[in-house]
Amino acid sequence: MSSSFGSAFRIATWGESHGPAVGVVIDGCPPRIPIAVSEIQAELDRRRPGQSPITTQRREADAVEILSGVHDGLTLGTPIGLMVRNEDNRGGDYEEMRTKFRPSHADYTYQAKFGIRAWQGGGRASARETVGRVAAGVLARKALSSVVGRPIEIVAYVKQVRGLVADVDPSTVSRSDIEANIVRCPDGPRAVEMIAEIDAARKAGDSLGGIVEAVARGVPAGWGEPVFDKLDADLAKAMLSLPAAKGFEIGSGFGGVTLTGTEHNDPFYNGGGRIRTRTNRSGGIQGGISNGEDIVIRVAFKPTATVLHEQDTVDVDGRDTTIKARGRHDPCVLPRAVPIVEAMMALVLADHCLRHRGQCGNGPA
Amino acid sequence: MSSSFGSAFRIATWGESHGPAVGVVIDGCPPRIPIAVSEIQAELDRRRPGQSPITTQRREADAVEILSGVHDGLTLGTPIGLMVRNEDNRGGDYEEMRTKFRPSHADYTYQAKFGIRAWQGGGRASARETVGRVAAGVLARKALSSVVGRPIEIVAYVKQVRGLVADVDPSTVSRSDIEANIVRCPDGPRAVEMIAEIDAARKAGDSLGGIVEAVARGVPAGWGEPVFDKLDADLAKAMLSLPAAKGFEIGSGFGGVTLTGTEHNDPFYNGGGRIRTRTNRSGGIQGGISNGEDIVIRVAFKPTATVLHEQDTVDVDGRDTTIKARGRHDPCVLPRAVPIVEAMMALVLADHCLRHRGQCGNGPA
Amino acid sequence: MSSSFGSAFRIATWGESHGPAVGVVIDGCPPRIPIAVSEIQAELDRRRPGQSPITTQRREADAVEILSGVHDGLTLGTPIGLMVRNEDNRGGDYEEMRTKFRPSHADYTYQAKFGIRAWQGGGRASARETVGRVAAGVLARKALSSVVGRPIEIVAYVKQVRGLVADVDPSTVSRSDIEANIVRCPDGPRAVEMIAEIDAARKAGDSLGGIVEAVARGVPAGWGEPVFDKLDADLAKAMLSLPAAKGFEIGSGFGGVTLTGTEHNDPFYNGGGRIRTRTNRSGGIQGGISNGEDIVIRVAFKPTATVLHEQDTVDVDGRDTTIKARGRHDPCVLPRAVPIVEAMMALVLADHCLRHRGQCGNGPA
Amino acid sequence: MSSSFGSAFRIATWGESHGPAVGVVIDGCPPRIPIAVSEIQAELDRRRPGQSPITTQRREADAVEILSGVHDGLTLGTPIGLMVRNEDNRGGDYEEMRTKFRPSHADYTYQAKFGIRAWQGGGRASARETVGRVAAGVLARKALSSVVGRPIEIVAYVKQVRGLVADVDPSTVSRSDIEANIVRCPDGPRAVEMIAEIDAARKAGDSLGGIVEAVARGVPAGWGEPVFDKLDADLAKAMLSLPAAKGFEIGSGFGGVTLTGTEHNDPFYNGGGRIRTRTNRSGGIQGGISNGEDIVIRVAFKPTATVLHEQDTVDVDGRDTTIKARGRHDPCVLPRAVPIVEAMMALVLADHCLRHRGQCGNGPA
Repeated sequence: MSSSFGSAFRIATWGESHGPAVGVVIDGCPPRIPIAVSEIQAELDRRRPGQSPITTQRREADAVEILSGVHDGLTLGTPIGLMVRNEDNRGGDYEEMRTKFRPSHADYTYQAKFGIRAWQGGGRASARETVGRVAAGVLARKALSSVVGRPIEIVAYVKQVRGLVADVDPSTVSRSDIEANIVRCPDGPRAVEMIAEIDAARKAGDSLGGIVEAVARGVPAGWGEPVFDKLDADLAKAMLSLPAAKGFEIGSGFGGVTLTGTEHNDPFYNGGGRIRTRTNRSGGIQGGISNGEDIVIRVAFKPTATVLHEQDTVDVDGRDTTIKARGRHDPCVLPRAVPIVEAMMALVLADHCLRHRGQCGNGPA
Repeated sequence: MSSSFGSAFRIATWGESHGPAVGVVIDGCPPRIPIAVSEIQAELDRRRPGQSPITTQRREADAVEILSGVHDGLTLGTPIGLMVRNEDNRGGDYEEMRTKFRPSHADYTYQAKFGIRAWQGGGRASARETVGRVAAGVLARKALSSVVGRPIEIVAYVKQVRGLVADVDPSTVSRSDIEANIVRCPDGPRAVEMIAEIDAARKAGDSLGGIVEAVARGVPAGWGEPVFDKLDADLAKAMLSLPAAKGFEIGSGFGGVTLTGTEHNDPFYNGGGRIRTRTNRSGGIQGGISNGEDIVIRVAFKPTATVLHEQDTVDVDGRDTTIKARGRHDPCVLPRAVPIVEAMMALVLADHCLRHRGQCGNGPA
Repeated sequence: MSSSFGSAFRIATWGESHGPAVGVVIDGCPPRIPIAVSEIQAELDRRRPGQSPITTQRREADAVEILSGVHDGLTLGTPIGLMVRNEDNRGGDYEEMRTKFRPSHADYTYQAKFGIRAWQGGGRASARETVGRVAAGVLARKALSSVVGRPIEIVAYVKQVRGLVADVDPSTVSRSDIEANIVRCPDGPRAVEMIAEIDAARKAGDSLGGIVEAVARGVPAGWGEPVFDKLDADLAKAMLSLPAAKGFEIGSGFGGVTLTGTEHNDPFYNGGGRIRTRTNRSGGIQGGISNGEDIVIRVAFKPTATVLHEQDTVDVDGRDTTIKARGRHDPCVLPRAVPIVEAMMALVLADHCLRHRGQCGNGPA
Repeated sequence: MSSSFGSAFRIATWGESHGPAVGVVIDGCPPRIPIAVSEIQAELDRRRPGQSPITTQRREADAVEILSGVHDGLTLGTPIGLMVRNEDNRGGDYEEMRTKFRPSHADYTYQAKFGIRAWQGGGRASARETVGRVAAGVLARKALSSVVGRPIEIVAYVKQVRGLVADVDPSTVSRSDIEANIVRCPDGPRAVEMIAEIDAARKAGDSLGGIVEAVARGVPAGWGEPVFDKLDADLAKAMLSLPAAKGFEIGSGFGGVTLTGTEHNDPFYNGGGRIRTRTNRSGGIQGGISNGEDIVIRVAFKPTATVLHEQDTVDVDGRDTTIKARGRHDPCVLPRAVPIVEAMMALVLADHCLRHRGQCGNGPA
């Protein structure tokens, strides 16, 4: 269904931007995993609006409540309900949106599909929906480590803002590297440039896009599925389901098409008793199944659709008109996209971890 | 499950490269759609190996048999079973594969996952599995046109081979343009160069990658879903589920990240009574739902992993060794990927067409 | 997944008996359906504990909150989140349950499965979980009527308590007949006897079982699916998913096995231009698909497992011991099961209504 | 989807009664399970028409072919395709069915749903579809034993034909007891009576119904799910999905409604270090999850709809007419239903076995 994701480890999010609350139900989580509300809150704080001068100034405490599925600090194995109340839902800012479609937003398509829409702030199409994903991602991470018996490290970071490309080694980058600056780019000097460029866009009432890169380290060989539910196919779906995402690639990605097969292939070798590849153009997945190397992906995000300039559009009756957004806007979603990308990666991996254990046990590997 | 795809219009493929047969079961197809075995065969012939000097020389008639779900030339609404017998399954060519893992193939990952593998020719990971997808795609196309009441045009083509980029207008390109040459690139002069480059790679025992672009024209506004099952998310999954796919983008894609929001947004206007956008950087989908414009996507395919050179690898016991493929190989999968990409696009659209009708009826649009 | 039900019209419930709240997420509901919180509340009040002397005296206002998916009194087509806070969660009453397994409850099996359980009041296995089903059932009913364009009447009632069998005509029985007494049995004299018998059981600290019969009138011919997702198979699953349910039958059911085919078959005839059957031993479904006649089912409920007598059992360490429940108990779940059975029937029908429309449009019928 | 069943261990059947073939695709089967075509064939022979004087005389060799998913006698973990060609498809016998609806068959409802039907012999609604279920059931059984590490015994038998009720102890009955006579009733004297009664019905051109009872022994505590996917709910769906099934019960079932809670509850005790229940009115499942006791269910089958007498009906244009079946018919489906019920039970258990392992590992039990 539209608002569910995953098969064995499955989530269902709900909530509109300006309704009473947003939330998520997590089903299939392994039992007896320790979880504290503060762990979830910490990740939501990374996603929260208003956390720095370069993100939207919407004020949301985003205080999460655990409604079910946890008992004495341990997961029960039954559905985990999590909820965050919406607070700063100033519908008034959006009055013009009642009658006009904002360009490159989902206003028109929701209206075309449903004949109705929650017109304040994008409703269900708002990035506010990702609160539930990030909250669920915390459980997914903990489930992964619990089942595997060691941490699966999932780290995302801003790889590119507009034309500014960072130099990052995915095999070593750490969470603290990412959190060292407000743009969440572990290349310090480049981060300074990015922040300046985003700030300039903010002042100009414009917005910028970019690329988030993410790596999962420590994934055992053997996760994923042949054919349709390939691990990379599910990652692609997860990432393209994010607001403003326009592209996905794994390993060599689009850049790899200019290589020949001889150049592109990853030779195997015996690395201390474990089968390894010398290069990682495969991005850690071959034939849809993890090979034990780092899983490295990239997601392209378009510049935010909300800009503070007058734009041509039509109203709900199809008449040509113009629209001009006012007030707060998010000049660049990239820094806040980082925890969301991590969450989606964790959700895909947790799902395939449980699926693999279901079919194959702990497997021969 | 691993081998099923879609929700309302759903397929399940089965079969290994060198087993008795490959096939597909299509469930949820609308009833009373005319279908002839020759229509399915025609598409399989586009996918077939050995169709031109620049594809693999494996000899397969790929004659399809309709096993169920069709009665007097009309679909029954019940599962449609389609089967193609494998013929040219020369296991002997692959004897070395029994004990060694081919670099950048799925040999090792299947072994790691399952502790067993059909080692001849890639087994389930072979592109031969796509026979079922292409066959099902024919039904999907017909279902789409039947439900919508007009043709939904789905056209894919080779946009790039290695560094050679074609100049193609997705809004007008036709099937006959694509079929005008064996590389399936509608830019004639560029096609000549591509063929030469592929042929050179073939002679060198090497392989090339590239990009397939695809367009769907005539999709009504309103198909797709909020949040997870976004139309573009499902397209991304569909495409990344293809053998050798490493990247997906829609509309402006990765290139769009260097634009500002003001430059990137697609202004709406009233185009003869219909809501249109002046530009199409959205690629026909906004907020996961079609907006009535052309849906334009691109898929990156790595160079084929089979090359006729000695490569470093390990054997099934993890010992370092070398492997050298012999005999036939496919120097460039792009021309044969064209009908497969079209099929996957048709399958995603047919699924969302029925899902939309289920929830919203024919909708307000 | 465990806590999701349905395919096109899908719900996911969450919540433990003594956690903060219980609730449901409804996904796939058609848009623009009018819904008031009072309509949902009215059904929850039918299910509510403490509503009459013959049900459990747990005090719950069961006030429902709409968290998402509704805008200006109309469904949006996006997930509808509904929540009811738990109030009368006196964990203290259940202290003995922390260390002992109550016979014929789910205490032991949850512990065996998960290695942990919310031991107060049954946790997830409590009938309190059905709050979400009943709330969702209201939407399902409204969706059905909206799509079909006329009311689909779904009426359940107590057919039997212990050995007392009511005489009811499913083709004419009305909601007001059912609500005429607290046992929800439309056979007035028999209802008096049932109430007396339940009251005697209550005083004796014992409990009674019985049968709920339900009918759906006005379902068009053509809903349901061949083979696995037969309409009656989905009804069977829906009903056996209810706490305390031990059996399901449709039409002639278990009683029909003593007839011969000649006696059992339902002859067709033309009834005023519509194809009808003279008898309805099929119970309105043939080959898994509705035939336009009344759909008539029966569900057997065992006597409630909570009795106020000392019983043999084991503790969590497997040692033989005894347990004696104290305080409030529900001597007969049947009266409160009536709205729950109706809700599940509505959910199954709404799901198949949308599935049918998705695959077949409005169909030829 | 209509023709798929299961979640982790999943099957999709396809095929019409008088089409080219029927078959099944099994997805999610654990790898490296030994399977021989002869093992599948043996079960199909138990289901085969024409196996005794009291079943239909349709002549089908029902020779199964393994099309995929098995390599050197071991499952690969990828989809297992199985096919049986239809041979004795004498369409001519059914000419009258082209224009008339047979009472209590699915002719009319399929026509109402799809606007088309494979009118020969019931098409998709024919019991011939169960070939795929029985074939898949063999894999399910082997998967169960492989994962659990000991045999899970699944035994079904004819418990009742018309008014003749057999006396059988489900805790000890064996496959050889069942196969000792052609009616598959392990109560020898009663079997003789049943055979006589079925033979009389056959001569009279009439048909009989009855009850199949089934037991699963050795299922560990902890399989199943809370709430919707309860183990008994999935069994109920599985059984009601069978042709001619009209009812399902588990443990005490409908008979249990006349007991009080005190009489009905199953006391726990420590049985040699394992938690056991003294009685088994729960039927081996509590709160939707297995408790380690025998799982005992019963399925009611109506008398076969095909009788050799003239019956009132309507034609496809809705005109009143009569119909009279000719030739072969199955006077009682019960003996052939036995292997089918076993197969469905095995499929449900295998699915929940893998689901449990996925979420909980091998669990604390």
